[in-house]
Amino acid sequence: MAGPMALELHPDRLFPAEPSVRAIARELHGHVAELPIVSPHGHTDPAWFALDEPFSDPTRLLVTPDHYLTRMLHSQGVALEDLGVQPLDGSPVADPRSAWRTFASHVHLFRGTPSGLWLDQTFATVFGLEQRLGPATADLYYDRIAEALATDAFRPRALLDRFGIEVLATTESPLDDLAHHDRLIAEGWGGRVITTFRPDPVVDPDFEDYGANVARLGELTGCDVTRWDGYLEALRVRRADFRARGATATDHGHPSAVTADHDRATCQRLLDAALAGTLDPGGAEQLRGQVLVEMAAMSLEDGMVLQLHPGSRRNHSPRVLERFGRDKGADIPGRTDYVDALRPLLDRFGLERDLRIILFTLDESTYARELAPLAGFYPCLTLGPPWWFFDSVEGMWRHRRAVTETAGFANTAGFNDDTRALLSIPARHDVARRVDCAHLATLVAEHRLSLDDAADLAEDCAVRLARRAYRL
Amino acid sequence: MAGPMALELHPDRLFPAEPSVRAIARELHGHVAELPIVSPHGHTDPAWFALDEPFSDPTRLLVTPDHYLTRMLHSQGVALEDLGVQPLDGSPVADPRSAWRTFASHVHLFRGTPSGLWLDQTFATVFGLEQRLGPATADLYYDRIAEALATDAFRPRALLDRFGIEVLATTESPLDDLAHHDRLIAEGWGGRVITTFRPDPVVDPDFEDYGANVARLGELTGCDVTRWDGYLEALRVRRADFRARGATATDHGHPSAVTADHDRATCQRLLDAALAGTLDPGGAEQLRGQVLVEMAAMSLEDGMVLQLHPGSRRNHSPRVLERFGRDKGADIPGRTDYVDALRPLLDRFGLERDLRIILFTLDESTYARELAPLAGFYPCLTLGPPWWFFDSVEGMWRHRRAVTETAGFANTAGFNDDTRALLSIPARHDVARRVDCAHLATLVAEHRLSLDDAADLAEDCAVRLARRAYRL
Amino acid sequence: MAGPMALELHPDRLFPAEPSVRAIARELHGHVAELPIVSPHGHTDPAWFALDEPFSDPTRLLVTPDHYLTRMLHSQGVALEDLGVQPLDGSPVADPRSAWRTFASHVHLFRGTPSGLWLDQTFATVFGLEQRLGPATADLYYDRIAEALATDAFRPRALLDRFGIEVLATTESPLDDLAHHDRLIAEGWGGRVITTFRPDPVVDPDFEDYGANVARLGELTGCDVTRWDGYLEALRVRRADFRARGATATDHGHPSAVTADHDRATCQRLLDAALAGTLDPGGAEQLRGQVLVEMAAMSLEDGMVLQLHPGSRRNHSPRVLERFGRDKGADIPGRTDYVDALRPLLDRFGLERDLRIILFTLDESTYARELAPLAGFYPCLTLGPPWWFFDSVEGMWRHRRAVTETAGFANTAGFNDDTRALLSIPARHDVARRVDCAHLATLVAEHRLSLDDAADLAEDCAVRLARRAYRL
Repeated sequence: MAGPMALELHPDRLFPAEPSVRAIARELHGHVAELPIVSPHGHTDPAWFALDEPFSDPTRLLVTPDHYLTRMLHSQGVALEDLGVQPLDGSPVADPRSAWRTFASHVHLFRGTPSGLWLDQTFATVFGLEQRLGPATADLYYDRIAEALATDAFRPRALLDRFGIEVLATTESPLDDLAHHDRLIAEGWGGRVITTFRPDPVVDPDFEDYGANVARLGELTGCDVTRWDGYLEALRVRRADFRARGATATDHGHPSAVTADHDRATCQRLLDAALAGTLDPGGAEQLRGQVLVEMAAMSLEDGMVLQLHPGSRRNHSPRVLERFGRDKGADIPGRTDYVDALRPLLDRFGLERDLRIILFTLDESTYARELAPLAGFYPCLTLGPPWWFFDSVEGMWRHRRAVTETAGFANTAGFNDDTRALLSIPARHDVARRVDCAHLATLVAEHRLSLDDAADLAEDCAVRLARRAYRL
Repeated sequence: MAGPMALELHPDRLFPAEPSVRAIARELHGHVAELPIVSPHGHTDPAWFALDEPFSDPTRLLVTPDHYLTRMLHSQGVALEDLGVQPLDGSPVADPRSAWRTFASHVHLFRGTPSGLWLDQTFATVFGLEQRLGPATADLYYDRIAEALATDAFRPRALLDRFGIEVLATTESPLDDLAHHDRLIAEGWGGRVITTFRPDPVVDPDFEDYGANVARLGELTGCDVTRWDGYLEALRVRRADFRARGATATDHGHPSAVTADHDRATCQRLLDAALAGTLDPGGAEQLRGQVLVEMAAMSLEDGMVLQLHPGSRRNHSPRVLERFGRDKGADIPGRTDYVDALRPLLDRFGLERDLRIILFTLDESTYARELAPLAGFYPCLTLGPPWWFFDSVEGMWRHRRAVTETAGFANTAGFNDDTRALLSIPARHDVARRVDCAHLATLVAEHRLSLDDAADLAEDCAVRLARRAYRL
Repeated sequence: MAGPMALELHPDRLFPAEPSVRAIARELHGHVAELPIVSPHGHTDPAWFALDEPFSDPTRLLVTPDHYLTRMLHSQGVALEDLGVQPLDGSPVADPRSAWRTFASHVHLFRGTPSGLWLDQTFATVFGLEQRLGPATADLYYDRIAEALATDAFRPRALLDRFGIEVLATTESPLDDLAHHDRLIAEGWGGRVITTFRPDPVVDPDFEDYGANVARLGELTGCDVTRWDGYLEALRVRRADFRARGATATDHGHPSAVTADHDRATCQRLLDAALAGTLDPGGAEQLRGQVLVEMAAMSLEDGMVLQLHPGSRRNHSPRVLERFGRDKGADIPGRTDYVDALRPLLDRFGLERDLRIILFTLDESTYARELAPLAGFYPCLTLGPPWWFFDSVEGMWRHRRAVTETAGFANTAGFNDDTRALLSIPARHDVARRVDCAHLATLVAEHRLSLDDAADLAEDCAVRLARRAYRL
């Protein structure tokens, strides 16, 4: 809490303290530290890379859009407006420098958190800062970062090169015109920055403006989206459009993992009710679950990997939703079932070897109880990395320990950074690689794994499993 | 199992074995070992401190009332009567010395348990015993402890001084006359031994004698407790009485975390049915949940901190309840939901910065999935320490590891001993401080936290967070 | 992935890396490494020991029947037929050597898994193999193992001697004629290979051919199994038959832990509906739960230990069930409740000191929340070891850490290998003993337990607790 202290990244950070284990972890990390970054799932803005313009200012790049950061300050009584988060009604917010100072004076809240690790590593390695952020260094940081952002070396495409990013997937709605991705392809960046098909706005009857969204889908595709077959055809058309922009995967952010496999008449009735706005919650669950099974069927046709991200209770605070909109840190995980919920999907496609479904969870109690046993049996299932709140040092340890003994490594999908915070991507992958090496080193030290196997698996976890899982 | 062995407390107990981590833990513990004890939540008897009389005998002080101990022996076939637990029908029980011998001959059951740690530390540091308890030392222990208890140095107030207890909160019913606390204030102990407002007997329709309790509440306050407004006013009056005796907090032991926010007419109907004894289980849940929201509203007025302790299935064994009454070790934790259950409360008050709600749980699966994400967003929420069965070495490690990465340290409330076992209080705080230092030392050794920050956080965890959370 | 590497079992495997902890673990393990094997729960074939014929070939002994192995290869796209798993329709399968080669070329999937540990230890210690299994060594392995199996030293009874197996329990249906166990008794192996009473086929209305099974039970016993009393009497008769063949325990594989305690008329109605095939799922649950309580009543009469193994969603894949039958790796754990589900049983028998019920779980979230608190109070309850997917290094650590602080060691039942893989039994017990010693060593190193107590507990965990729990 005193004056500024040195910002130093210890080369052995996140490795176990016991010297023999640490030495093994260090050796394993040496094999993977410089490998390229494979980022098959994330939420950066494709406009950044298409337009390649300089970022505006430190606050709007690093703080305001990062709900990992703003939620922590909010929990301690800081108003979101004071961090630059814009209310929907246009009320004034703090200017970028003031917001940065507010952030800097609360950065001690991140001690012991992954955000703290990511921030320090970003400040040190991307901006070369040598003192820790705090009230006394707030302006120094702001000026140094602002200055850097104005240079060509910090334009988005330059950062992709500098970070060694082999491939980066963004996420778009089926209503997106994909113009940014078209430009990327035209300018030689196709295959490096790719899109992902995320149909929630036209699939989830509870999504804002669902009816209008579906209507717009119809216009875009020329399909009769009021008929079940036409609606599916419209989705199929858009999937092809996304495939053409490099997409290898779809993504589905459902509140639960419920799947369904109804006859066509029932599907039509569910769609009718959804479009009429008369579908009850149980019906909405069935409709989402039905579309998920249809997506799996289409994946068997077109080869796209299906990602299921269930279990977030989105917009838990109605007042925050009303004032600021979505994605402001008010999404809370909840208990999630898989074993029964996935039955309709698995009964139909579970044994397909050419289908790949990547399962994520926000309910860690399912790792060992449900997900690892499922993925350790069904050929179509692969487990995604620890997600969101669990994309952290302890979270990754819990994941590996709970999953590995039943599912092995081969049924996992490597690491996702899943972030909209572009500058934190190298730090996030570094943390993941360090934890994986620490885990593997522990197995080696306890004679549960040979050193050769550990080196092989470290590379699997760093890049190969992700490339394979996402068919990159 | 052989003869008596030396009872020795190793100065490095509970610290990780790896020498570099242990050295850091030892250093951190050096900063906090001698800090005063802040005990904002517990169940000691205020009569002890008001009357300041000697304790009767070792068994009735240390064994009979401690259901952590009696339940373990009971699980291995020892009758509760043989430990001095009095049946309600007045059946005879073992005399104190016999009960002590029975206890001593089973103390090996506590190997590897927190009770074992607390007992050994209490015996060694409070009574200066130098051999371990066992059949061979049962009488030696009994005599030494009995002798000590007869001295002035072991009177309750002297123990508060000796233990360095800065503040100790007891817990009383709204029907309590608070005479002991009045006497404490009159004799200069106000603010040191304080009360806590625990309204379960007049709030929970399933509580024994609920109707009579509510009627008595009406008599005490002169309010018409058959009317919803009068009932609330009666609670408000008693809260003020408790505030006047130093209370800074209320406490609520609900079976679930359900909250409710009904209109006044519905509230009146729920109350009517509860008083008529016709409320069904769902209605009882709603009534308890409604009162909780009313308590939050009153907390905003009077500043009292609201503690919610949900999830215990009390009196799981009807036979034990019938024969011995409540709190005899037959309370079993159960699965507990927070994310949906707290919505009515959080919709109304979640964004209030001047409200403090401290959440506890007996369902550890909620730490990372629900509680840390909630407390890491809502300004009013703070997480209590690991509770009851989880107030243990492994329990505290699990809690810190599951909570810290999402909620940080600032959204936690420090340590509670939550005990009726006065003599164990120093040992319980020492165990907590040691585990916190061990956890922090691990973060330092893995370069996830600086040593300076760790020292600061160790003091936070030992005393500052508790003072702040409870507004002491 | 390169050529064959040396297969070496490190003497310190599974011990923590920190040298002082490792030294303690090694010392503790020295006390228990050579103790006999007590195997009170498993699924080996009694015909092996009764007939004592040589095993046929490596694949059919080690791979095909072991669904831990086949499911992992299946999850990566290998057809079960290619591992020799026989479809019910008689379709051809790979010959043993081909299947072995397929297995060998996928053995890298088991890196970091308990199956990997068990396999390596079995290959090294039972067959003296010195290179690791892989594509290059597949034939070497096959030939060496086949050659060994043809010798007298590898006949089933010789293996029991060689493995130091003091007692081995198999599991039979009430419809079994127990002829193998009769022969074992006649040939002097009684008490060494014993049976276990597993009545699922005549208790679970959802079991294949339930009605015919119950009818057969009536024929075997001469009881009128269409009447509730006659049905119970038939079970009682068969329990006595099993007791006469050495059985000390019953075993119950219910989908949930639900118990029930209905009046006789209700029981008759449930049985009638079950036999008529008209029982709905809720009724089936009640009938199973009722029989469980009846089994507890009979256990009080005849002294047999009641084992409850709930929570597996059996035959999750209907296609695999249809093609291959039961026990092919498609059983998936699910969330399981105990606190409310066991009430009817515990209300009636919970306080009985002469009843022993051993509880297992596939839902680790219940260890600390429900099972340890229940077993730490009710005299009749004992906790089984980590089961099935959790019978692993990390699984055992989680179990000890979650259970010990509330239930101690005395309320646990030691280790079960629970396997049909005879040759892996020594490896499984060795892994369990090593993990227990590692856990105890950690407690000693952190000064939470004395070394003497740890040595005593290590022997408890290795053999004494199992003997006591199963009344051997």
